[in-house]
Amino acid sequence: MWWALRAFKIVSMRLRLDISYDGTNFSGWGTQPGLRTVQGTIEDALMTITQSPDILRLTVAGRTDAGVHATGQVAHVDVDDPGDAASFHRRLSSILVRNPDVRIRRLSEALPGFDARFSPVARRYEYRLVDDPSALNPLERNFVVLHPRALDEDAMNEAATLLLGLRDFATFCRPREGATTIRELQEFVWVRDDAGHLTANLQADAFCHSMVRALVGACVAIGSHKFDLDKLADLRDARERTAHIAVMPPHGLNLVEVIYPPEHELAARAEQTRARRDLAAIQAME
Amino acid sequence: MWWALRAFKIVSMRLRLDISYDGTNFSGWGTQPGLRTVQGTIEDALMTITQSPDILRLTVAGRTDAGVHATGQVAHVDVDDPGDAASFHRRLSSILVRNPDVRIRRLSEALPGFDARFSPVARRYEYRLVDDPSALNPLERNFVVLHPRALDEDAMNEAATLLLGLRDFATFCRPREGATTIRELQEFVWVRDDAGHLTANLQADAFCHSMVRALVGACVAIGSHKFDLDKLADLRDARERTAHIAVMPPHGLNLVEVIYPPEHELAARAEQTRARRDLAAIQAME
Repeated sequence: MWWALRAFKIVSMRLRLDISYDGTNFSGWGTQPGLRTVQGTIEDALMTITQSPDILRLTVAGRTDAGVHATGQVAHVDVDDPGDAASFHRRLSSILVRNPDVRIRRLSEALPGFDARFSPVARRYEYRLVDDPSALNPLERNFVVLHPRALDEDAMNEAATLLLGLRDFATFCRPREGATTIRELQEFVWVRDDAGHLTANLQADAFCHSMVRALVGACVAIGSHKFDLDKLADLRDARERTAHIAVMPPHGLNLVEVIYPPEHELAARAEQTRARRDLAAIQAME
Repeated sequence: MWWALRAFKIVSMRLRLDISYDGTNFSGWGTQPGLRTVQGTIEDALMTITQSPDILRLTVAGRTDAGVHATGQVAHVDVDDPGDAASFHRRLSSILVRNPDVRIRRLSEALPGFDARFSPVARRYEYRLVDDPSALNPLERNFVVLHPRALDEDAMNEAATLLLGLRDFATFCRPREGATTIRELQEFVWVRDDAGHLTANLQADAFCHSMVRALVGACVAIGSHKFDLDKLADLRDARERTAHIAVMPPHGLNLVEVIYPPEHELAARAEQTRARRDLAAIQAME
């Protein structure tokens, strides 16, 4: 029967998308009605080429806020019968050409067990600052934040070291019902380049909402000698949000990489992450 | 008498402005009625702070076309009684804050004999290309030109070497009545970075109109094996513009530096340049 043949032909395939975007003119990653978002823009393009009557939902490694950039974002989508991945990539790119601020760098069939959101072992972000108005390059004005006074980068690196490790980052997180704020900050280091720009490199298993921008805000407070390291340690250990630590502007922030484990660990890692989040939700309800 | 005192107080001062701009949303450097230009934007700001009834004309080292960027542009302006340069700089910057795509990086009293246009001994430009669509970073889409097929950078460097030296660059210049097209191309080299981007570094005593973009077009033709080096040498020596060599898009181009001689040579160098251009004009009329 024709419908049986047709049903037989349809094969759902999980596609992995490696995505870069300039966040300047997007209202962040996540779809919001009436607003231009990265997710909405790509999902619209997916609907156009698949002619799917339903939205093909993207699952993303790192939801970014309005104005935040990504050169290393990763997402997945399950598509019925997408055909050859290379040709799917070409069609998707040709539709997205009208949105030059987002690009699908790579599109491939996902490895077995791959989940863009739950499989990662780590995320890497960069935050860029310039503390000398004469060094602010107008070509980079949407990607570098101007701090109007000189910053002490040695003090900032001491502050960054104080924030490393597996701990409860509630001081730095916008709270979300039933979600843990325990994270492992594996790397946080400031580097000043020849042009006088300060770049923070951060890596954690995952970051909660506003966490990178608040961690950077803590270092800026220390780097401008607003308070000392002892006070920072106290604020960190108080596990409460505080007006002493600014959440820095979004446009200095860039999601540069999402790190996945080797293929044979992808599924187990996703299971583990999901279980940990469920446990946190249960504990939060108790 | 009051007017004598007043006349005594007014001291015209030549100011040197070091300027950076993102050319994306400007119709080039030079003022054009009804269009947003870099010169017009800065001259408007100068009129506002000096409350001058006349336009304060900027003289520029390198007039750039629409879409071309500059991180090392230099200009001068003669201002009656500007007061302290640092405070003049602050006032100018605070007015230009509504135009974040242009910045006056430095503003200083010009050295004696300084002329932004005629004193330079050399100008340096960069041109940026990417020849792999997956390497095009949307954060850099306004500063890097996508060439859709792989380019042979060794061949491009051979082409660049062929174009070096003191010669008549008429093949590469948009002709201008009474102007010479003899220039000295002192450096022209292509470098591929880790991200796969190709950057050309060019230095000449001066460049004529469209010259850098046509020199880059010649290298792209060789790098995609459209014709060979012998043919390029023929085209170069024909000293006629040709459809074989494309004038590349403006947004890959950036004026990165203007090189001035030591202070004691500034005036003599300006004299020399003016004399040479006058001679060329005379010869052209003959």
